[in-house]
Amino acid sequence: MPSAQNVMVKTRLDDPIPPTIEWLGDSVRLIDQRLLPTEVVLVEAHRVSELCELIRSMAIRGAPALGAAGAMGIALAVVRGEDISEAGRDLISTRPTAVNLAWGVERASSAADPVREAVLIAEGDVEANRRLGAHGAGLIPHQGRVLTHCNAGALACVGYGTALGVIRAAAEAGRNPSVWVDETRPLLQGARLTAWELSQLEIPCTLIADVAAGSLMAAGLVDVVVVGADRIAANGDVANKIGTYPLAVLAARHGIPFVVAAPCSTIDRDTATGSAIPVEHRDPVEVSEVAGTAIAPAGVSAHNPAFDVTPAELIGAYVTETGVWEERPPI
Amino acid sequence: MPSAQNVMVKTRLDDPIPPTIEWLGDSVRLIDQRLLPTEVVLVEAHRVSELCELIRSMAIRGAPALGAAGAMGIALAVVRGEDISEAGRDLISTRPTAVNLAWGVERASSAADPVREAVLIAEGDVEANRRLGAHGAGLIPHQGRVLTHCNAGALACVGYGTALGVIRAAAEAGRNPSVWVDETRPLLQGARLTAWELSQLEIPCTLIADVAAGSLMAAGLVDVVVVGADRIAANGDVANKIGTYPLAVLAARHGIPFVVAAPCSTIDRDTATGSAIPVEHRDPVEVSEVAGTAIAPAGVSAHNPAFDVTPAELIGAYVTETGVWEERPPI
Repeated sequence: MPSAQNVMVKTRLDDPIPPTIEWLGDSVRLIDQRLLPTEVVLVEAHRVSELCELIRSMAIRGAPALGAAGAMGIALAVVRGEDISEAGRDLISTRPTAVNLAWGVERASSAADPVREAVLIAEGDVEANRRLGAHGAGLIPHQGRVLTHCNAGALACVGYGTALGVIRAAAEAGRNPSVWVDETRPLLQGARLTAWELSQLEIPCTLIADVAAGSLMAAGLVDVVVVGADRIAANGDVANKIGTYPLAVLAARHGIPFVVAAPCSTIDRDTATGSAIPVEHRDPVEVSEVAGTAIAPAGVSAHNPAFDVTPAELIGAYVTETGVWEERPPI
Repeated sequence: MPSAQNVMVKTRLDDPIPPTIEWLGDSVRLIDQRLLPTEVVLVEAHRVSELCELIRSMAIRGAPALGAAGAMGIALAVVRGEDISEAGRDLISTRPTAVNLAWGVERASSAADPVREAVLIAEGDVEANRRLGAHGAGLIPHQGRVLTHCNAGALACVGYGTALGVIRAAAEAGRNPSVWVDETRPLLQGARLTAWELSQLEIPCTLIADVAAGSLMAAGLVDVVVVGADRIAANGDVANKIGTYPLAVLAARHGIPFVVAAPCSTIDRDTATGSAIPVEHRDPVEVSEVAGTAIAPAGVSAHNPAFDVTPAELIGAYVTETGVWEERPPI
């Protein structure tokens, strides 16, 4: 079994968030998100197999972050003298749904200098997210009550965030947004990661169980829904964290704008519609346990799709680093 | 603080389920549902204040069970020489949404012999649920894949169950149903209670995170949704566990029948529409912790409505002990 190396424990949770993932010259350092929000631990991967295990176990997750991880995995293969094609296949097979992983692998693999390309992708991610946020900020009304699902923040990217990038750009523009944070079972990325990021940014937020979003919308307490994406098909269908589709259906019923924020690297021109997007199914124990405690009787089976697909008809706007697109994502 | 007495630990979880609540002649014995499915512990309440605390902390829950608990609380007041009016007010104030609690209190309070009335209500509950199940069984297709939310089983009643009563009646009639069990955050009654009951009944079931119901419906894997109710307004709007309304919206989108199973004591003729039903808000810590473990950063606020309201237009059928009602519940 590959084992990555823990290099540092930051005990001050209110320190500035380090980059989600960083190239160190001959290794990759990343925040181990499985341990948040209890502690900020940075881990280093020195081999492709170590990085693959960190991706598979969701120490790092989020489509844009996986794009950078894929590219840095190829960079690792180059500096370690590992086979690049095999490294690419191993990296891509860790998580099937987010297309950014394959995008990062392919961009680095086909570059003259894969190491330099990986660094450029990481730098470009933060820059693209800032542009994305600036484009999307206008979709958040003044004092807008935003509902978001899962984590599409700095931790899902190299930095700044996509859906949370839109929200923080709105905050930076003086619009005073507040955020309903879906806890996002089974792995609780909303409760663990999004609530932590928003607290650090001093953007008011309130945690809810995922099941509460419908009654909040019915009570008129949600002005806009903003989520990220793991893959956007050519027709605009969006794969994102399981639970996104129900939010889009509820938002449509209540006339609430439903906004998808994602960089262009999330758009998959080669997948015609959402039905062709592979949906990862993860270990059922993620459902039958919470934080290591069993919540169901022993032996009960569980079903654990990690993503669902929201049809384009339910999406009011796509926000990318190139602008706001109401009808179709930019292909 | 009142403290009820633990009287018995049954370690064999596969023994027959004892009655959810039982009158012992001068005390009330009930299953402490907070400890399921890990262990079956029976607790006794000897005073009204002890019973109130058991209801408030959800050692016992479920609208029909609360109806019996309300009546037995009045019976306790009678045998202990406590003030009946004050006992009634205290009991009703523990949980505001389920109308059965007030119904049980009022039926026992106005009876010539409140103790006998409480026993009759408990006996009548099981009998009514069997009739309800028999009426509703025909709504479950052969080999039907049923989705249910929260727990509307024997544990939500004195015995047999309402939504699960329909499912088990279908099973007894040879229809071979299988069940998707919503885990039902925040208190996980689906994972802890419904999965346990179905396992004991040997009805095939699969646990899902609440967020997964939408993609199951979109994939054509759900034939019918059956849930219980905490209060049915005169116009047919239904208050039930938070998360029920999103299921009804999703079911409508996918043309899946949405069935509410509840005894007539859940119908509140005095509440015109769902908007007049009081929705209980519970301690935010139920959202920010799971099984005693914090899942969010310290200091993050949380919002915890325990119920939502599903409008009558989304409900395909009401099943009561008097029959199946497609247009309106029987008033």
